[in-house]
Parts: sequence; C-alpha cells; structure tokens
Amino acid sequence: MIIMKTDATPKEIAGVVKEIKKYGLRADVSKGRYRTVIGLVGDESKIPFSHFATLPGVKEATMVEAPYKLISREYSKLFEGEVEHAVVKIGDIEIGGDKPIFIAGPCAVESHKQLLRIAEEAKEAGAHMLRGGIFKPRSSVHSFQGLGATGYEEAREALSWMREAGERFNLATVTEVRGETQVDLAAEYIDMLQIGTRNMYNQDLLTKVAKTGKPILFKRHFGAGIEEFLSFAEYIAAEGSKDIVLCERGILPVGKGKNDTRYTLDLAAVPIIQNETYLPVIVDPSHATGRRDLIFSMSCAAIAAGASGLMIEMHYNPAEALVDAQQAITPDELKELINACRGIHKLTKLRKNEKS
Amino acid sequence: MIIMKTDATPKEIAGVVKEIKKYGLRADVSKGRYRTVIGLVGDESKIPFSHFATLPGVKEATMVEAPYKLISREYSKLFEGEVEHAVVKIGDIEIGGDKPIFIAGPCAVESHKQLLRIAEEAKEAGAHMLRGGIFKPRSSVHSFQGLGATGYEEAREALSWMREAGERFNLATVTEVRGETQVDLAAEYIDMLQIGTRNMYNQDLLTKVAKTGKPILFKRHFGAGIEEFLSFAEYIAAEGSKDIVLCERGILPVGKGKNDTRYTLDLAAVPIIQNETYLPVIVDPSHATGRRDLIFSMSCAAIAAGASGLMIEMHYNPAEALVDAQQAITPDELKELINACRGIHKLTKLRKNEKS
Amino acid sequence: MIIMKTDATPKEIAGVVKEIKKYGLRADVSKGRYRTVIGLVGDESKIPFSHFATLPGVKEATMVEAPYKLISREYSKLFEGEVEHAVVKIGDIEIGGDKPIFIAGPCAVESHKQLLRIAEEAKEAGAHMLRGGIFKPRSSVHSFQGLGATGYEEAREALSWMREAGERFNLATVTEVRGETQVDLAAEYIDMLQIGTRNMYNQDLLTKVAKTGKPILFKRHFGAGIEEFLSFAEYIAAEGSKDIVLCERGILPVGKGKNDTRYTLDLAAVPIIQNETYLPVIVDPSHATGRRDLIFSMSCAAIAAGASGLMIEMHYNPAEALVDAQQAITPDELKELINACRGIHKLTKLRKNEKS
Amino acid sequence: MIIMKTDATPKEIAGVVKEIKKYGLRADVSKGRYRTVIGLVGDESKIPFSHFATLPGVKEATMVEAPYKLISREYSKLFEGEVEHAVVKIGDIEIGGDKPIFIAGPCAVESHKQLLRIAEEAKEAGAHMLRGGIFKPRSSVHSFQGLGATGYEEAREALSWMREAGERFNLATVTEVRGETQVDLAAEYIDMLQIGTRNMYNQDLLTKVAKTGKPILFKRHFGAGIEEFLSFAEYIAAEGSKDIVLCERGILPVGKGKNDTRYTLDLAAVPIIQNETYLPVIVDPSHATGRRDLIFSMSCAAIAAGASGLMIEMHYNPAEALVDAQQAITPDELKELINACRGIHKLTKLRKNEKS
Repeated sequence: MIIMKTDATPKEIAGVVKEIKKYGLRADVSKGRYRTVIGLVGDESKIPFSHFATLPGVKEATMVEAPYKLISREYSKLFEGEVEHAVVKIGDIEIGGDKPIFIAGPCAVESHKQLLRIAEEAKEAGAHMLRGGIFKPRSSVHSFQGLGATGYEEAREALSWMREAGERFNLATVTEVRGETQVDLAAEYIDMLQIGTRNMYNQDLLTKVAKTGKPILFKRHFGAGIEEFLSFAEYIAAEGSKDIVLCERGILPVGKGKNDTRYTLDLAAVPIIQNETYLPVIVDPSHATGRRDLIFSMSCAAIAAGASGLMIEMHYNPAEALVDAQQAITPDELKELINACRGIHKLTKLRKNEKS
Repeated sequence: MIIMKTDATPKEIAGVVKEIKKYGLRADVSKGRYRTVIGLVGDESKIPFSHFATLPGVKEATMVEAPYKLISREYSKLFEGEVEHAVVKIGDIEIGGDKPIFIAGPCAVESHKQLLRIAEEAKEAGAHMLRGGIFKPRSSVHSFQGLGATGYEEAREALSWMREAGERFNLATVTEVRGETQVDLAAEYIDMLQIGTRNMYNQDLLTKVAKTGKPILFKRHFGAGIEEFLSFAEYIAAEGSKDIVLCERGILPVGKGKNDTRYTLDLAAVPIIQNETYLPVIVDPSHATGRRDLIFSMSCAAIAAGASGLMIEMHYNPAEALVDAQQAITPDELKELINACRGIHKLTKLRKNEKS
Repeated sequence: MIIMKTDATPKEIAGVVKEIKKYGLRADVSKGRYRTVIGLVGDESKIPFSHFATLPGVKEATMVEAPYKLISREYSKLFEGEVEHAVVKIGDIEIGGDKPIFIAGPCAVESHKQLLRIAEEAKEAGAHMLRGGIFKPRSSVHSFQGLGATGYEEAREALSWMREAGERFNLATVTEVRGETQVDLAAEYIDMLQIGTRNMYNQDLLTKVAKTGKPILFKRHFGAGIEEFLSFAEYIAAEGSKDIVLCERGILPVGKGKNDTRYTLDLAAVPIIQNETYLPVIVDPSHATGRRDLIFSMSCAAIAAGASGLMIEMHYNPAEALVDAQQAITPDELKELINACRGIHKLTKLRKNEKS
Repeated sequence: MIIMKTDATPKEIAGVVKEIKKYGLRADVSKGRYRTVIGLVGDESKIPFSHFATLPGVKEATMVEAPYKLISREYSKLFEGEVEHAVVKIGDIEIGGDKPIFIAGPCAVESHKQLLRIAEEAKEAGAHMLRGGIFKPRSSVHSFQGLGATGYEEAREALSWMREAGERFNLATVTEVRGETQVDLAAEYIDMLQIGTRNMYNQDLLTKVAKTGKPILFKRHFGAGIEEFLSFAEYIAAEGSKDIVLCERGILPVGKGKNDTRYTLDLAAVPIIQNETYLPVIVDPSHATGRRDLIFSMSCAAIAAGASGLMIEMHYNPAEALVDAQQAITPDELKELINACRGIHKLTKLRKNEKS
C-alpha cells in the first residue's frame, strides 16, 4: 500500500502506478478527501517497499498483511480522514442508510403470472426490492434448475419479467447469477446481481460480475469464516466495484438432529463485519432456517443485531412453490414482519445516533 | 407412556405404578388438570404395552420414541388439556413470565468487596438476579479455578457472600456446580443451581442437582444439537424436577479465523425449544461471543428472538477481572442494554398476545 | 428411471427418449451388458411414470429419489448385471486398478526449469502422474494466483511446460481449472482436469469440464457431506462423462486450536464412497493437513483405508515454493512414502481378493 | 516451572516447594534422570519468577504459557535429557511398546454368560484386553443405562464378572466410570479405568479417577480440539498420575447427510499427539463410525497412522446386543482385523526404527 502526500500531483501518482506495473502488479488508485492511496493487487512480496518510499510524492509505502484492505474501515480511514459506513444506492433505495431495506420474492421465478402477483403483494407488504431465482443452484442435477436452465431465450424471457415486475410496482430487482456465461445477460435486465453462497469462493465469477459495474449482493459461504468471506469480497472491490452488500445466510451447524436448523444464523457476524468494513450487511433468514415458523423471530433478531435489511422468500401460496416451499412466508406474514422490524430498527438506530 | 382415564381412581393409578416396577422401570406420575399420565423411566422395550392397556383405569398405553417426553409440550398437552409455557419462580421473580429477566454479575467471585459492589451496581442497572462463579470450569489446570477450589471452608465463605449480596440487594442468586461433591453445599446458600456447558452430558451431576429440588439453570453444550440438549434436560425432569431454565450460550463455529467469535450463538434454538418444550429459555451472550463490544447487539437479538431473559457478565472494572476480562461489560453498559431489551421485548410480546 | 426389457429394440428405446423430451427432460441412455436403462435428467416430478410403464419395450418405470443415480453402484447393477468398480484409464495408467497411483508435483508451476526438475524427481521416486497448479484459487486477491493469472499467453506457455514434462518423463498430467473460460485451453494440453475443493458446488464449471470428455479429478468441498459430494459428481456424469476420480482432501474441523490440522481428513469417506459408487477414490493428504511432517502417516492411513491413490505436493526445495511451502515434501520423502504405501496396499488388496 | 540445578539437594527442592505453597499453588515435583523440575499447579500469575530464580538450587524459573506441561514431550526433555515415548504397563501388557494392543469386548455387559463367552472369543481372536460397559452414558434417560444403573450390588456383581473374565482368559480389563461415586468401586475390580468422550471436560471426575493411581484410558470429547484434549489430560497428570492412554474416537462431522458417519475419525491427531506428548495414543473406530462395515478399513488406517492400539466392540451375535448393535463386529472379523493390523504395524515400525 502506497500512501501519497496530501499535495501529491497527478503526475507523481501516475509515476507510482507506472512503477508498480513494472513489478507485475496492478494499482488500485483511491482518491480520498485528504489524500490518495494506491492499493497493490497481486503478489506484494515482489515489491521493494523501501524503493517506493523514495519516489516523488510518496508519504509512506508499507506491506499490509490483511487479506482485505480495499473494503476495510481501517484502510479507508487513511485516505478518507474518518470512518464512514457506505450506502449502496439502487435508484432511490439506500442499503445501509437510515431505514432497513426489505427484499422479498419467490425462491424461483416460475411464470409471468406468479412473479407479477408476488411482486404486487411484496410491494403492498412494504418491500423495497424484488428477488426471484432464474438460475438456481441445486444439490441434485435431477431437480428443477430454474427457468434459466431451459435455454438462452427462456432465460431472457424470465429476466424480462423481473424487469417488468420491478418497473410496474416500483421495486428494484435482484437475481442470482450462477455461472460466468449468465452474467452479461442478467446485467441487461436486473438492478443488482447476487452471488450465492455456493459461489462465494468462485473468484472467476466474482471478477466477472464486478466488471459489470452493477451493485452486488454477496452471500457468505456456509462453510466460511468471516475473514475468508471478506477476503473474497475484496476480489470484487479489486475490480473497482465498491457497491457491495454483504449477506449473512447461515453457516454449517454442529449437529443436524431432528430439531436443528439447516444452517446456524451467525448474527454476531453483523456487528463484526460492520466494524471491519464500511459495507452494509443484510441477513437472509429464509435459507438459514429453512422453516417458515422461524422467519419472524430470526428477522427481528437480525434487525436487532444491526442488519441493514433482510432478504425473505415470500409466496402467495407457499405450498405451491416448486423450490423450498417449506420456507416461504405469506404476504400477510411479510407485512407483519416488516412492521415489527421497523419498530426494532428505530430502537436500535436511536442508540447508534446517541453514541455518535 | 400410560395415559389413564379421566375417572381413574388413585388405587388404579397405584396398580399401574406397581406393575411398571415389576418390569424394572420407574414410574413418573403426572397429575394433569384432566387426567393422569404415567411416564416410564428406563428401558421401555421391556414393557408389554398391550398388557398394560388392559389394566383397570388405563385409557392408552403406547411406546413414545422421543428421547424427551416429560419436558415436551406435546406430551404435557395429553394430560393438561392445552399447551402452556411454564414459569419458573424464584421468590417473586418469574422466568418465562411477562417480563424479561436479567441475570448479571462477575465471571468469578474474587472477594467479598468485589461481589458486594458488583451486586449493588447490577441491582441499580435493573438486574433481577446475581451470578458469580465459585467453582470455575477451566481449560487449564494451571489457571484460577475459583475460590471454591481452594478448599471446603473457602467455598462455604464465598457461597455465603453470594447469599449476603443477594439478600442485601434483593437479588436472587445463581452459581455453577461443577462436580457432584459441591452440590449439597451450594444448595444450602444459593437460590438456583447452574449446570454449565461442559457438564451438559454429565448425567450423574444432573441427577444429583435435580434431587436438591432447587430451580436449575441448564446450559447447552457447545457441541450439542437441540435434540440432545433436550434429551439431557429430560434427565433432570426424570427426577421430578420441572423448574428448569434452559440456556443457549453458543455452539462450535465452522471457522475460527481472526474475526470469528469463540462460539456461534444459535438464536433459532430459542423459538425451536419454545415450540418443543414448555420450559423457558434464556441466552448468555457473554460466553458465546467472548467480546464486550458484541454484547449489546447480541442481547437485543436474543430478546428479539424471543428469549425470556439474559445472563450477562458485568464488572465495575472489567480489565481487573481474573477470568474472562475481555467479555465483561460495565454497569452503565448493562443499564443501557436492559433498557433497550425491555423496549424490544414489548414489541415482541405485543405480537404474541395478538396471536393468541 | 426407465428400465427397458432385455429384448427392447433400438426403435423402442428411441421412442422412450422422444417421449421423455416431450416432458422437458433429458434422457441418459446407458446400454448395459443385459439391458438398457434410461436415466432422467431434470425435474422428475413432471413425469407420469405409470404412462411410461406402458410404452413398448419398457420393463419398469420408477421414480428414484436418490440425488445421484448415474454414478451409483446400486443403479449400475440394474443394467450391468453385477456390481463393478470402474477403472479410469489415462494412457496406460489405471486409477482404481490393481496398483495404487501416485500423483506428485508442485503446488504451483513457477518456471520451466522448476517444473522439469520436479517432474524428473517425481518419476524417479515412483510417481505415475504430474500435478502442477497454473490457475490457483487463493483466499486473498493480493496473493500469487498462478502463472495462468498473468494472461492468456502465459497460461498457454505454462500448460505447454506441463505437456512437455509429462512427455519427457512419461507422466500423465493433471491441472486444476478454476473458471469456465480456462477449460478449453487447459484441455488442449493436459491429460486430466481437476475441479478443486472450492469449485465443488460450481455446477456450471462441472458441466463445462464434463463436456471436454477428459478424465476428471473431482475434489470434495471442505464443507460438504458425502451425499452432497456425490450429488455434484452426478452433474459430471449427467453429461455422459463417467471417467471421474473422486478425491477426499479434508473437511472443516471442529476446533482450530494450536495443534489442529487445517482440515480433518475424513478417511471413512473412502470405503463409504466405494460402497455407494463404482468410481475410484484417491486422497490428498497435503492440503488436508497442511503440514509436511504428517504426510507420511496420513498417506499410509489413506492407502490402508482403501484409497486407489494419492495426490502429494512435492518440491526439491520446499522452502522455496511460492505457495504452500510448509506442506510440500522432498523427492526422497516421496520415494519412502510410495514404498511404504505399496507395502500396505498389498496387505489390503490381498484381503479384498480373498473376500471375492 | 522451576528447573533445579543438576546437583540440587533434597533440602533445596523442599525449600522451593515450601515457597510455592506460600503463594497458594501446588508443586508437582518430577525427578528426571538429569535434574528435578517442579511444575506449578494453580494460577502462575501469582508467582514472582524473578524471586524464585534466586532461591538456592534453582537453575531457572520461567512462566510456561502452554496449558499442558506435565504431559508434554518438550517439557519432559528438560529434565529427562532426551525425548521418550512412555509405555503404560498393565500387568505384562505394554501400551505404547513394540506391539499394537487390541482391546475388545461388548458395548455393555449384559450377563455373566454373555461376558464370559465374549471374553473367551476375544482372547482367541488375539485381543489383549477386555472392555465392557457397566455404567453407560446414554443420550436418553429412557434407554438402558448399563447394569450399574440398577443399584450398588448389581454394579458390584457386574464388575466382579469383568474381573473373573479377565482372570480366566488372561485379559486385562477396562471399564468406563461415568460419575464420581462409581470410581472407588470400579477401581476395586478393574485394571484400567476409562473416562468417556462425554466426560472429557468433567475435571472433578478426572481428578477423582487420577487419585486411584490406576492406569487411565482417556477419550477425546467429540467437540474438542487437540490442545483442549491435552489440557484436560493435564488435569490427570497434575494428580501425579502419568499412566494415561489417550484415545481418539471421532469428532463432530461437518455434514450429517445420509452417508456420513456419526463422527469423523481424526487420524492426524495420532501423530500430532505423539509429537506433542510422550503418552501413547489408541483409536476407537467402533464409536467413531458406528458402522460395522467400516471397522476393518478404519482399524487398518488407524494403525497405519501410528496408533499404539485399538478399542473394538465385539459380540458373538451383534444383532442381539442391547446397545450399539449396529457397530459390533464378530469374533472372526476381529481375528482378521488383528492379523491385518499386525502386518501394517510391522511396516510402520520398521520405518520408525530406521529413522532413529
């Protein structure tokens, strides 16, 4: 990491960037309020930091051992002058802002009619964004893989329904991209691209999605520690993309007895990540618990823990859903949940404001 | 399980109990509002249920496969006529009642002065109960094991301080018993006996503590699934002791990287256990996270998830504490936490009442 | 799954395939020694099995609930007439045959000279195949990502070194492909393509690699149960590719204290998978333990558990390696290990032959 | 830890011990070949090491941070002059010696006849020791808890059968003690006392068993890391008892899908513990896998990993066993297993001898 002097000239900055490239690394130039900091992307062990410290305009050149720097609050402090929480904007929606954001919709998009009806009911219940799976990751090749699996034209059609539903009911849209070849197509139609839990480690997909410039919803792998999760978010940031929303969705449980949930929601990850990075964090209680009757409690708990929003599976008739029928809630339940969460958020927010 | 007819006579009940003993099992007689149910403690495979079904006064005799029956809501429904949540009373404190209960105090009792000061500040902050470790389970034999480890008289003295502090500040008291030989002594002085996470599987200790007739705070082992946790609570209930408060305190995490908490708080366990049993559930965020800065968030989350109370480590000067200094909060922080949790509990309670 | 009669004609088989397509599923036709079985790839719930049972040439049409069928021993029994273990052939090497196969080489290919020297020493030590990472999955974007990360031409050059080393020393070659865009290039040069632990769930990559027709080394994800592992191997088999070698490489441990290994080698998975599928299983002790001093013991244990081979990181000077220096062994250590494993394999093999 | 000079007199040693007691700690005096080392049992932070370093006869006084010292190879090196592996002797049986030791027997002792018959067949198959559960830890209070649960006299009788069977067939005996009150009774009859996986953290039981002076078989808890396991073994050693055999028996798995074993056998723990301590390590594949068909493979793997012995559940008619019927093997299978393991042990031993 190369920290430039406050009065470093553009020419001096360009000189450092050029020097970095000589060593086979990429330079990530961040112009802060007070100064410019140049991050190194690549193998830092090749860099002679003492040499860089002598270049014109350089204040400090140091090895930073942390596997993530670009998304770290500590790092951003160096050039922004103070710690801030980023807000990810999608149209007039602000994730990480003053109000909790609710994303709702079906696990899988099944038909035009199904999607439009759910979108309308999500809006009425108070949701801000519409989710809907078109490229579904599934454990079994013999299960329904989403409409996107049928073919290119079917995928395009389903994506266009998402756009249509979003526009008609004033909901921003988000869908998961599962493979590199789906990214450009999805980016044409959808406001925010999701990288699912099973693809957290898929660095080629991360890079590909980051290059679209779209806001990204990035889910933690169910077997990943927090540091690992943030290290992979750094792959996205390394492409210059900082509109990243992190999502806790449950990690592998110790036991899997009769009453254990499929995954254990790690709510402590919410304040921990908020302390480590400036990125907003939301929670998905639907996939974590896999049980409709737990969604309300765990949603309230997530907001109480400080989450900036929730992602919830909703269906007008859960029993009918082709995928994950046992975890979707009804529009009425969603409405009740959103109201309760808003109340809890106000109590929590109050305290945060008092503190600062 | 033998379900008696509504009009079964005491003599008929005694007859069934006698018959059960013949087969080498014990009988747990529960007189409900509507009927009496007789639970079998021992190896049920030895029981000829068809024979029992023909005894006078017997309505039904069936094998129940569940490893816990005495603490199960489903089972209690059979003879109580409707599902209820039990309230565990300690003096005028009701755990599982209308208000959340806060238990606070030092990890380890260190001196008379330390304990009395903390008790006073806990009371002022709004706590209902005082915790304080005298027999400390420790990973290393070379660490401080609590004042109780020094000798019998030292243990008695420390226990008497707990009683004194409780009486002076009108706080009920709770302390952990770690081995069978400590139980009777602790029961002389303390209102509620705690079985710690590492002793969840220690069935001989469970039985011994149950026999004191004292209310019991029973913590989940960090490697136990929910079903296993409840199966061991059943060991306590099998002694006729139903004043059991269950405590979620974190389970083993998937990762243990730089930012992961020591344990993962499994908050979904709160509504799951409340659904499975009629016993109240509280949460210990101090041991789960091991980090002072996470206690507020996770306390709010626990109450939002439906917990009936919290157990929090508090010290007037956390840095001074001999054990677990990094996880204790100050009296001021405790006060703020209790206020926030009360607000959240009101929102949650409201919803529960609307439902019923 | 549609099981045809022994005397079903090609026309009858084609008729069933056509009918399956009508319902939007794909047909996987397996001609066995005794009869043909048609597997269904897609959502089986759409299929009216009773209707299919009446088609000409059909013996039986049944729903099979198992998430993997194509790679299952039980399934293959239906049309092959007896249970067999498949042998995956790469040139004259037989994985799953009479002798254990040893794959050795550097974690990362670093230079032409490094690779050629290691290949020569691997051959001398008794290895059959050469491994070498060109596209490296890494936790940190700021670490060395392999020569393949520098650019297309650099990737091609490094791949050509693998081919050269393989040809010169008569070693078959294997390298990991990490993203979809690398597959075709790697397939030009390399004998066997590896899907790494972090990509086990990357079904788009699995499908892409399967389509090359190359033998595939498929590693278990460190957070995956055995059933899940096999369900994803089924994605490969669903493309008609049955030359799959499964690799156990350690799963997430309970603890990560000072002395715990990075991952826990699940050696029971070896006999379990051999019982469930006909595919050969090898073990990678290098990534599982991450410690050079444990490689010998765990290699012996893996072969004793019944593994068909081992994949070992080796370097003439481990301390020099750019990646995972602490887990590579020397050529001499490799030689000793191979000799010991051969001895153990003979003892184990003997018993297997006696049994059958 | 206080290291005495080579020529320190008994009076000087006694002086140091006296001084240690002043600070409220206990002294563990180990007389080595070359010098005496005094371990501190208690809170070392109270000790002014610089003061102790000036006492007569003291060579060095240092804080050792490791949670285990008394069982550590590194520590024993300080006063024994070289690293050695301890051999635990039970009559003429040497655990940790030249030959692998096989412990076999029923999960639970059920009758005099059952035990005697199994003992005879275990001996014929080549076993050295007889296991048999009398005080059974069980997940459900409603399951068979062993003959010891029926009453004091029944426990004594079952224990006497163990002694009788051991004497008649020249087998040393081992049984689990589950609670503190069972220890003295069991020690009257049995050669080696076992502390089971669920009691690993039960430090009061550990201390109680250590005081009997009997050799101890100490099993790892299924949720414990290696460092934690060794830290609790230190509780036993702190009582002066060094005849400890450690037992790996499987840890909690990541997944619990259809094909996963109940626990994951962590065989890397064998060489790791052998490197950390001088204590012998054996393996219990029966409880780890819970599946009869995996016992042979995992036994071979355990011996290949360097284990000093195995503990195996055996029954002449497994289907009849009251407890864990699905994991017991037959006498013939035991014989075959012992033969294969002896062959593998010779190969492994050979290499160890060549090395030294």
